[in-house]
Amino acid sequence: MTGSKSISGRKLPRYSGIKTFFRLPSGDFKDVWDVGIFGIPYDGATSYRPGCRFAPSRIREVSALGRGYSLVRELSWFERLNVVDLGDCQSNPMDQDATYKGIESFWGEILALSRRGIAIGGDHSVTLANLRACKAVLNEPLALIHFDAHVDTYPASWGSEFHHGAFLRHALKEGLVDPDKVVQIGIRGPLNDIADLDIGKNNKFSVYTVADIRRLGLDNFCQRIPDFGQTPTFITFDIDCLDPAYAPGTGTPVPGGLTTFEVLSMLQSLSCPNLIGADLVEISPPYDHADITSLAGVYILSEIINIMAAFSRND
Amino acid sequence: MTGSKSISGRKLPRYSGIKTFFRLPSGDFKDVWDVGIFGIPYDGATSYRPGCRFAPSRIREVSALGRGYSLVRELSWFERLNVVDLGDCQSNPMDQDATYKGIESFWGEILALSRRGIAIGGDHSVTLANLRACKAVLNEPLALIHFDAHVDTYPASWGSEFHHGAFLRHALKEGLVDPDKVVQIGIRGPLNDIADLDIGKNNKFSVYTVADIRRLGLDNFCQRIPDFGQTPTFITFDIDCLDPAYAPGTGTPVPGGLTTFEVLSMLQSLSCPNLIGADLVEISPPYDHADITSLAGVYILSEIINIMAAFSRND
Amino acid sequence: MTGSKSISGRKLPRYSGIKTFFRLPSGDFKDVWDVGIFGIPYDGATSYRPGCRFAPSRIREVSALGRGYSLVRELSWFERLNVVDLGDCQSNPMDQDATYKGIESFWGEILALSRRGIAIGGDHSVTLANLRACKAVLNEPLALIHFDAHVDTYPASWGSEFHHGAFLRHALKEGLVDPDKVVQIGIRGPLNDIADLDIGKNNKFSVYTVADIRRLGLDNFCQRIPDFGQTPTFITFDIDCLDPAYAPGTGTPVPGGLTTFEVLSMLQSLSCPNLIGADLVEISPPYDHADITSLAGVYILSEIINIMAAFSRND
Amino acid sequence: MTGSKSISGRKLPRYSGIKTFFRLPSGDFKDVWDVGIFGIPYDGATSYRPGCRFAPSRIREVSALGRGYSLVRELSWFERLNVVDLGDCQSNPMDQDATYKGIESFWGEILALSRRGIAIGGDHSVTLANLRACKAVLNEPLALIHFDAHVDTYPASWGSEFHHGAFLRHALKEGLVDPDKVVQIGIRGPLNDIADLDIGKNNKFSVYTVADIRRLGLDNFCQRIPDFGQTPTFITFDIDCLDPAYAPGTGTPVPGGLTTFEVLSMLQSLSCPNLIGADLVEISPPYDHADITSLAGVYILSEIINIMAAFSRND
Amino acid sequence: MTGSKSISGRKLPRYSGIKTFFRLPSGDFKDVWDVGIFGIPYDGATSYRPGCRFAPSRIREVSALGRGYSLVRELSWFERLNVVDLGDCQSNPMDQDATYKGIESFWGEILALSRRGIAIGGDHSVTLANLRACKAVLNEPLALIHFDAHVDTYPASWGSEFHHGAFLRHALKEGLVDPDKVVQIGIRGPLNDIADLDIGKNNKFSVYTVADIRRLGLDNFCQRIPDFGQTPTFITFDIDCLDPAYAPGTGTPVPGGLTTFEVLSMLQSLSCPNLIGADLVEISPPYDHADITSLAGVYILSEIINIMAAFSRND
Amino acid sequence: MTGSKSISGRKLPRYSGIKTFFRLPSGDFKDVWDVGIFGIPYDGATSYRPGCRFAPSRIREVSALGRGYSLVRELSWFERLNVVDLGDCQSNPMDQDATYKGIESFWGEILALSRRGIAIGGDHSVTLANLRACKAVLNEPLALIHFDAHVDTYPASWGSEFHHGAFLRHALKEGLVDPDKVVQIGIRGPLNDIADLDIGKNNKFSVYTVADIRRLGLDNFCQRIPDFGQTPTFITFDIDCLDPAYAPGTGTPVPGGLTTFEVLSMLQSLSCPNLIGADLVEISPPYDHADITSLAGVYILSEIINIMAAFSRND
Repeated sequence: MTGSKSISGRKLPRYSGIKTFFRLPSGDFKDVWDVGIFGIPYDGATSYRPGCRFAPSRIREVSALGRGYSLVRELSWFERLNVVDLGDCQSNPMDQDATYKGIESFWGEILALSRRGIAIGGDHSVTLANLRACKAVLNEPLALIHFDAHVDTYPASWGSEFHHGAFLRHALKEGLVDPDKVVQIGIRGPLNDIADLDIGKNNKFSVYTVADIRRLGLDNFCQRIPDFGQTPTFITFDIDCLDPAYAPGTGTPVPGGLTTFEVLSMLQSLSCPNLIGADLVEISPPYDHADITSLAGVYILSEIINIMAAFSRND
Repeated sequence: MTGSKSISGRKLPRYSGIKTFFRLPSGDFKDVWDVGIFGIPYDGATSYRPGCRFAPSRIREVSALGRGYSLVRELSWFERLNVVDLGDCQSNPMDQDATYKGIESFWGEILALSRRGIAIGGDHSVTLANLRACKAVLNEPLALIHFDAHVDTYPASWGSEFHHGAFLRHALKEGLVDPDKVVQIGIRGPLNDIADLDIGKNNKFSVYTVADIRRLGLDNFCQRIPDFGQTPTFITFDIDCLDPAYAPGTGTPVPGGLTTFEVLSMLQSLSCPNLIGADLVEISPPYDHADITSLAGVYILSEIINIMAAFSRND
Repeated sequence: MTGSKSISGRKLPRYSGIKTFFRLPSGDFKDVWDVGIFGIPYDGATSYRPGCRFAPSRIREVSALGRGYSLVRELSWFERLNVVDLGDCQSNPMDQDATYKGIESFWGEILALSRRGIAIGGDHSVTLANLRACKAVLNEPLALIHFDAHVDTYPASWGSEFHHGAFLRHALKEGLVDPDKVVQIGIRGPLNDIADLDIGKNNKFSVYTVADIRRLGLDNFCQRIPDFGQTPTFITFDIDCLDPAYAPGTGTPVPGGLTTFEVLSMLQSLSCPNLIGADLVEISPPYDHADITSLAGVYILSEIINIMAAFSRND
Repeated sequence: MTGSKSISGRKLPRYSGIKTFFRLPSGDFKDVWDVGIFGIPYDGATSYRPGCRFAPSRIREVSALGRGYSLVRELSWFERLNVVDLGDCQSNPMDQDATYKGIESFWGEILALSRRGIAIGGDHSVTLANLRACKAVLNEPLALIHFDAHVDTYPASWGSEFHHGAFLRHALKEGLVDPDKVVQIGIRGPLNDIADLDIGKNNKFSVYTVADIRRLGLDNFCQRIPDFGQTPTFITFDIDCLDPAYAPGTGTPVPGGLTTFEVLSMLQSLSCPNLIGADLVEISPPYDHADITSLAGVYILSEIINIMAAFSRND
Repeated sequence: MTGSKSISGRKLPRYSGIKTFFRLPSGDFKDVWDVGIFGIPYDGATSYRPGCRFAPSRIREVSALGRGYSLVRELSWFERLNVVDLGDCQSNPMDQDATYKGIESFWGEILALSRRGIAIGGDHSVTLANLRACKAVLNEPLALIHFDAHVDTYPASWGSEFHHGAFLRHALKEGLVDPDKVVQIGIRGPLNDIADLDIGKNNKFSVYTVADIRRLGLDNFCQRIPDFGQTPTFITFDIDCLDPAYAPGTGTPVPGGLTTFEVLSMLQSLSCPNLIGADLVEISPPYDHADITSLAGVYILSEIINIMAAFSRND
Repeated sequence: MTGSKSISGRKLPRYSGIKTFFRLPSGDFKDVWDVGIFGIPYDGATSYRPGCRFAPSRIREVSALGRGYSLVRELSWFERLNVVDLGDCQSNPMDQDATYKGIESFWGEILALSRRGIAIGGDHSVTLANLRACKAVLNEPLALIHFDAHVDTYPASWGSEFHHGAFLRHALKEGLVDPDKVVQIGIRGPLNDIADLDIGKNNKFSVYTVADIRRLGLDNFCQRIPDFGQTPTFITFDIDCLDPAYAPGTGTPVPGGLTTFEVLSMLQSLSCPNLIGADLVEISPPYDHADITSLAGVYILSEIINIMAAFSRND
C-alpha cells in the first residue's frame, strides 16, 4: 500500500494551488485507490438557513490545513491509505430525486469496487441516498453512528417528506439501518414535543444526549460507544452536534452542544472494524466565521479516515 | 381614503416594535385597504448563492427607515394610499409547485378585490407565479417593466425548466405578457452565448443595457421608458440590476451595474397609469453588509408605491 | 389552560411571516394570557459597545427556531402557558427617565393583572426599572437570581449614577431586593479593585464565580442554587455571564465565562416556585455572528418560561 | 511655521505604532500648533444604528494611510500647517449636556488661541455644541457648509429636542449661523413630509440635492458653491451624504447618495478664505466593512485641512 | 483550435466541483493550449493590509460565475481560445527572490512555447518578475498598460527596494518597459509628495487620473488609450484602481476611484494587437465582502482574455 | 512603588482617547518604570493566514477594557507595578533580519535597565529574536513556558529556516533555552508526522497536550506546572493554544483546543519567581470577530503582568 499523494505544505505553501480535499490528487473510478471523497453540494431540503451547497468547495479550501498523524491511534491515514478526491456528484438544487440519483450513482461505483467512500454534504437529506446506495450494494442493513443535535426522525414538514430532519425515519422504514445498531450522539432539547423521541424509543436506539455524555464523563462515554464488529457501519456526522460557538456555520444551530475536543476524542477512540462509508453534513459556509466550522469539519474528516486506516481491510 | 397607519419614528424609535413592512398595520383580505404587500420567502430555484428566503423578514426590519414623500412627484404614498402588510404567503423550500400555489392564492384574493399588490421575493422564479395569477384574473397579457442584470429567458438548467433565470421565457410561452410591451433595464454582459439574446430580439423587447443607459444619459433615458397607458402593467425588480457595490446581498451579482441613484430616478419619473402589481426579488440578506442591499430595496419599494399613489385609481 | 398559539414550523417554514417572540400572537393588556413578553430597546447606559437596542427585534427573528419541550422537566411551556408578545414598551434613546417610565408602565399593567412578564432588554440599566415596578405592585422586596460576569454594584461613572453596571447598587439602596436572597452566578475577574466586591460581601450575597462553579461541578452547583419558596423572585440574565465564544454579541464581554450548556442546565434544574418575572439583557446584535448570541438568548428564554410553566400558579 | 511632524510610512510601516490622527504628535493647548484635531466619541443622540462613539478611535487607526499633497491645490497641508492630535474631549454616553460642556471647553481653548480646530464625532448632535462654542468666542454668526443626506432641521423626536437630526434647527434659533450663508449638499428624499423642507425654504438656505448636483454636472456645481469671504466659516460633514455603497458604516444611511469622487472634488475646489473649524460626523465603525467608510472620512479630512492650508492665515 | 473546455453551469451547478479558473481544465506545459492562467499567491511585499496570497484560490472559486461573450466585441473567448489553468507557480511567503524565480520559470515556459499567459497575484511586486520574464524571452522592452490608484514608482520603504509600490521604478531602470509606451489609468491623490510624480513626468508616461477620465468622458477617454500595434504589450491591473466601494478587498484602498463599469468599458474597447500577457494583482479576500472584489476581478480577467481572443495570433 | 497611571474608565469612557496598551502612559527608555510593553507588528513568516501585523494596534484598542485585580492572587498589577507602553519596535514586513534587529534593540534596552518587558507580536517567528536578546544580556539559557497548539520545532519550509513554526528548534540549537526547563501546554494533533515530536522527546521537554490536561483535571494540572525558581523565565503565549471558538482570529487555528478559563486559571496559579519577559503572538485581527480573540489576549496579558506583580523583584 503506497499511501496518499497529498502535496506537502512544506513544499508548496498551504494556501497555494488548485484545491482538492486534503490536497489529494483528483481521482476517477478507473484509478486505483482505497478511499474516495466526494462532494454533494445540495441544500434544497434545508428548513432554516441554507448555504451548505458551498460546503464541498470550502472544505476543499480549508483542508489544505489537514494533517493525519493521530496521537491516539499512533498512525496516519496519509501513510496507510491511498485517498483521492472524486469531485462532486451530479446534483440539482431544484430536484432532490435527480440529486439522489447522482449520489447513488457515485456510491454504486465506489462500493462495486469494494472501496470506501466519504461524502461531503450538503444538507442531512443526502444521507438517505447514501444509505440507500449502501443497502443496494451490500444487501444488509447497516449499523449507524449518528452525530447530531437532532434525532432526524421528524415527520413531514409543509407536506414534504424528505426534508433534512427526516432521513432516519425513512431509513428505518426502508430497512436501510438495523435499529438495534443505531447510536445517536449529541442530541439535545428543547424539542417540539415529547413525541419527537418516540421513533428512537420504539426502535431502541442508543441515544446519548449532551447531558448524558457530560454526566458519564468523556473517557467513560467513549468506552460505551458500541463496536459493531463486522456489521457494515456508516458514520453520519451532522456538524450541528457541535455547539454554535464551535460551529456557527450551520443551518439549524442548537446551543448547549458538544465541543470539538469531545467529538474528536470520540472518533479517535472509536472501534469500528467495518466502516464502509461516512458523510459530513450541514456545514454552511455563508454563516461561518474565519472558517472555524469548516476547519472543525476537516479535523473530523481526518479522524474518520483514520478509523478506516486503523481497520484497513488488508491489515 | 385616509392614508396608511404607519407608526411614526418620531413617536416610537424606528428600531422599536414588531416589524411589519414600513411599520404598517398587518392586514387581512377582509380588511379595507388599497395596496397589500406580502412576502414570498422562497429561494429553491437559485442557481448560485441562496438566502433570499430571508428577504421578506429583513425588508420588514429595515423598512422601519422608510419614508414616502417624493421630491419629484411631490406627494407621499403614506398619505394617498392605505397600504398594509399581508404577511407571507404559504411556501415550501422543497416544492416550487406548492409555493406557486401559495403565491397565486394571495394574488387571486388581492386582484379579486380589485386592489393592488406588491410581492417581496424570494428568487426570480416567483415572478412566473405572480404573472400567472395576474393573467388568470385580468384575462389579458400584461405590460412588463423588468429591471435586471440578466435577460431571464435562459433555457433549462440541470434538466430543470423553472429556475430563477427562466421566468420570462415561460411567461412569454404562456402568453402572460405582451412581447411588444416588455422593457428590460440594466442588462449587461458578458453572456454565455449570443443566443441568450435571441428570445428578446425575436420578440422585440425594448432592452436597455447599462451601456445604453449611460450613453443616453439618465434624464434622456428616463423619458424613453414607454408609458403603457391603460394596459395593466407589472414591475419586476431584480436587485441585481444594481452593481454589486450597491447590492452585494444577492445571489448572482454582476459587476458593471446601475447605481441606486439611477434606478430611483427612473422609478420617480416613470409614467405608469395602470400599475396593478410589482415584485422585488433576489435580495439575499446572508450576503448583505450593514443592510445596504435591503435598504436599497426599501427605497425602491417606496418609489414603486409612489407610482401607485401618483396614478391612484380613484384620482 | 389552552397553551400558546405559536405558528408551527411544520406548517409555515420558520423563516416565514411577521416575526413575534416565538411566533406567538401579539397580545394586549385586554387579552387573556398567562405570560407576556415585551421588548425594551434601550442602550443609552452602555459603557462600551452599544447596539442592544436591536436585541428585541433580533430575538423576535431568531426565536422562530424556539422549541419548548424540556427533557429535564418533561413538559413544554408551549402547552402549559398562554404566552403572548406584548410588543415593545415606550423608550427614548436619549432619556433614561422616560424609558424607565415606559418600562414601569408595562410591568404595572402586567402585575396588576396578576400575570407574569419577561422583558427583553436593552442594557442592564433597565433592570432597575423592572425591579422598581415589581416592588411598587408587590410591596415586598424580591429575591433575585442574577446571571452576570459583573457584580453590577459599581459606583457612578463619568458622573452618572444609573449606568448599566449599577442597577443592583440602586436596587439595594431602594429596598427593591432582599439582600439575603440575592444569588450571583458567573462573576469573574479581573476587577478594577477589590472594593468592587464590598457591597456583595457586606450584604451577604451568594456569589458564585465561574471558578467556584467549575470547582463544585455543575450538578453539585445546580443543587446549591437556593429555592426562595413563595418569595416573589426575579431572574435577571445578563448574556455576558456566557463566555465571549458563546456570546460575542454583547457590550462588555469578559473571557473565561460559562458555556450555554452550563447556564441551560442551571435553569433546567432551578426550583423557583414564585417566579414573577425575568429579564434578558445585554445582547448586542451588531456584534453577533450568525446569530449565535441571540439564539443562546432564545434558549435561555425558553428555559425561563419553562420554570414558570413548572411552577404555574394554577397548578 | 514648519509643517507637521507625522511619522513617515517609509520609515515605520503604516500599521505600526500608537495611533494618532495622521500619525501626528499628540498635542496640548500649551504647545504651539496651527490646527488641532480632536475626537468627540458620543453617540447618545442617534435615532437608529449607534456606534459612532468608536469613530475617533477608528479614524486614528485608518488615518495612518493618510497623505496630504493635493493634485488640484498643488500643496500639502503636511508641509504648510503644524497639525496635532489633541485627544478626545470629555464626554458621557448618558449625558448630552456634560458632553456639550466637554466639547465647548475644547473649542474654547482652541479659538481663544486664535487657532483652528477639527472635531471627529460622534453623532450629528455634537455640531450644535461646536457651533455654540464658535459663536461664543467669535461673537458673530457663522457661514455653514453642510454635507448631509438629511436637512437636520427636524422637530423633536420621542419628546427629545436635541437628537442627531435637529442641530441646525437649534443653531438657527440660537443665532449661531447666518441663514443666508447656509449651503446644504447631498440632501435627498424621500422625506417624511414636505414640511421637512420648510425651515430651509423659509430661511433661504442654498439646498443642493443629489439630483441637483448630477443635473448641473460636477464641475459646474463646484463653481456654484459660494465663497463666504472673510465670514468665519464652518464645515460640517455628515458621512451619510455619501451613498451607502461608499459609506455603509453610518447610522441612518440613505440610498441614492454622492460618491467619494464627488465630495472630494467639491472640497478640492472649495474657496473658503476663513475656515475656522470643521467636524466630521456619523461614521459608525461597527457597521463599516474593510474600513471603507473610515477611510473615506480620512480623505475628506485631508481635503478639509488642505482648505485650511490653502487659505492659511499667515499667508 | 477548438475553444475552451469549461464545465457548463447549465450542466453542473456553478458552485459544484473542484475549482479551477473559469472551470477550465487544469493544464500542463506539455499540453496544447493558447492561453495559460496561473496563480502567484505571494503577499510578502505589502505595505499595509496583507491577504492577497489567497487571491488565486478565491478567484478560482468565484470565476465559476464567469461568462465570455462580449456584447461590444461580439465574440467569446470561450469559443476562440483554448485556455487552461496552469496551477500556481512556486512561491515562498518569506523569500521574494525565490518567488520571483518561481514566477519567471512559469513565464519562461509559456513564452518559450509562444503562448500567452495571465498571472493572478499576489501583490504588485510580482509584476516586476512578470516583466523581467517577458523581457528575457522577447528581448525588447514592452508597452505597458497600467491600471492603478498608485504610480508605483515610489522609492524604497523601510530600507526595502522591492515593495509593492515600486515595480515600475525598477522596470524602467532595468529597461523592461518602453517609457514612451507606458499608460497609467486610475491614478489619484492625495500623494505623499509632488516628487511622487517625477518619474512619470520625466519619462513621459501617459498618466490619466480619475479626474482626467471623468472630465474627458468615458467614451472619449476610451478612444485615447493608445494602440501599441505590434509592440509586445503587457496589462498590469491593480484592483485598487477601482473605488473601495467596488473593491473593498484590497491592501491599500484609495477613495475616489473608478467604477467597474468604467474599467470594463475601457477593456472592452481596447485595441491591443499584441497582448502577450497580463496580471491581476492586489485582491485581498480577507478584506472582501460577499466576494464583490474577486468577482470584479473575474470580469476584468474575462475582458482581458477577450482582447487576446479579438487579436488572436492565428487570425 | 507608585503603580501604573492608567486612565480610569470611570472618568473617561473606555472607548475614548488615544489608545495605548491598557490606557497606560507611553514611555521611553529614559523614563522610570518597571515593565515595558511594546509591539512587534510583523507577520512575514506566517505559513497560512497573515494579519498579525495588526495585533499590537488592536490589542491597544481593546485593552481599554483591561482590569488588573486578580481574585486568585488578591492583588492588582495596576497598583504594584509601573507599566508603560513603549510603542512598537522597528520592523519591516519584507525583512526578517531587520525586524529581528529592531526587536533585539528594544529588549537590549529594557534588560540593560534590569527591567521587564512584554512583546506583542507578530507571528511566532519573533520569539526567536526575543530569546536571543534575553540570552545576550543574561548570559544564561532561559526556562521557557510555551503555550501553543504546535510544537514549533518543525523543519524548514519552502527552503526557509525561520518561519513561524520553527522558533524553538533554533532556540535550542543556539542554546537560548534550557531543554530541561521547557514546558509546552496545549499541544494537539493530528500532526504531519510522528517525527514532529522527536525534538521535544529527545530534549525531554514537558509536553502537555490538551488531552493530558483534560485527563489530569485543571486544578491538578495547574499544580504540575514546574516552578523554575530563580532561573530567568520567559513565557511565550501563542493564542492558537486556545480553541478556534475562543480565538478565531489567528493564522493556523487548530480545533480541539483549550478554553480561556483554562489558560487564565493556569496563569493565575503559576509560580514563576523570575519571569523576566513574555510575548503574546499570532493574534490576527482580520480574522477575528467582535474582538473576542484580542480580548482573550488582553486578559492573558493581564495575568502575565500579575505574575510579574506577584513576584516583584523589590518585594
